[in-house]
Amino acid sequence: MDFEEVVQTRRSVHEYSDESIDDATLERIFELATLAPSGYNLQPWEFLALRDDDQKAALQAVANDQEHVTGADTTVVVLGNTDPMAHANSVFDDWLAKDYLPSEDVKNAVLGNVEAMAEMPEDDRRVWSTRSTALAAMSVMYAAWNEGVASCPMEGFDADGLVEAFDIPDGYEPVMLITLGYPADETADIENERKERRPVDEVLHIDEFNPTDDTVVADD
Amino acid sequence: MDFEEVVQTRRSVHEYSDESIDDATLERIFELATLAPSGYNLQPWEFLALRDDDQKAALQAVANDQEHVTGADTTVVVLGNTDPMAHANSVFDDWLAKDYLPSEDVKNAVLGNVEAMAEMPEDDRRVWSTRSTALAAMSVMYAAWNEGVASCPMEGFDADGLVEAFDIPDGYEPVMLITLGYPADETADIENERKERRPVDEVLHIDEFNPTDDTVVADD
Repeated sequence: MDFEEVVQTRRSVHEYSDESIDDATLERIFELATLAPSGYNLQPWEFLALRDDDQKAALQAVANDQEHVTGADTTVVVLGNTDPMAHANSVFDDWLAKDYLPSEDVKNAVLGNVEAMAEMPEDDRRVWSTRSTALAAMSVMYAAWNEGVASCPMEGFDADGLVEAFDIPDGYEPVMLITLGYPADETADIENERKERRPVDEVLHIDEFNPTDDTVVADD
Repeated sequence: MDFEEVVQTRRSVHEYSDESIDDATLERIFELATLAPSGYNLQPWEFLALRDDDQKAALQAVANDQEHVTGADTTVVVLGNTDPMAHANSVFDDWLAKDYLPSEDVKNAVLGNVEAMAEMPEDDRRVWSTRSTALAAMSVMYAAWNEGVASCPMEGFDADGLVEAFDIPDGYEPVMLITLGYPADETADIENERKERRPVDEVLHIDEFNPTDDTVVADD
């Protein structure tokens, strides 16, 4: 699909058809999504894709009982590793092999920077992980829609309950949920007028920051 | 451009040509980017686009002196409002006008949910704001590349120094920087082999979460 069409026609969808997403399509979505950038290319993202009905039901129970969690073919728990060092060694070996780093010494210096990041307080590491992981999450939603698969991002869930229900080890931040599935015929989520966005001249500030809290949203 | 081509050819670029991004192109990039989803459509994002040379130099001074901050035509400070209530009233007026909410009473109930979010500790509100703001930031980078404008996301900067240098009021989280500009001819950032990504079968977990820290990155 044309890029602009993907962005302009993507909507958050809550009603899905019974059609299943085949494995190859799911793989293609995540293949593209993982081309997203991340700080130092550390790629803290992990995606727990729930496809089994019982698993989706267990998620719905910790997600304010929102029905599209089980209505979707696949509901993804997007997790962020809060340890910057988790994949640093292999990532920087790749940099070295591709001449992004000139020597083993420089590699060790860069590793030192990441070690320092790993010493940040937990709250800062949560923010760090959420930042890069959300870049990949956005990419999942666009890549899905490019395949005709609709999505809905969700942040309303009980993080502690989720961690317990799915045996998530310490050190992974549940960043968001994303439901994935083919949209139901004529679902209002696609047919209805899109929810208004704050206008560009309100959110884009050239050379000087003058934010306003007085959003005027057209109600035509 | 075709969606897959945008995603597959987007690279993080540090070397830019002298060509300026015209205002209409910049506006089109942010117009598309703000179609990104956000929790409750609250759109906490603000974009401070520095185009003036002195302003970009002031940013470089608080961004580890990274040269592409001034080398780029435009360097964007991506900010996230940490107050979920900031735009809630106008956003939910829009929901009411478009029948996403059935009545003023339901609108007030939803506002109550957001008021509760606004009572979260500051660290949770930083995570909240970073999550939705990063969705828009990813969209900026794709929308830019669709116009031939390259980008580079950066998280290495002195947040306190930035807030002071640009008079950012309390309550805005500096989420990341994004340089924007037309790439320099034959820049290595585009010509070089892409940095490896963790493979899909490592990051995508079906129904059961089995993360590994032993990333094997091909070094071909």
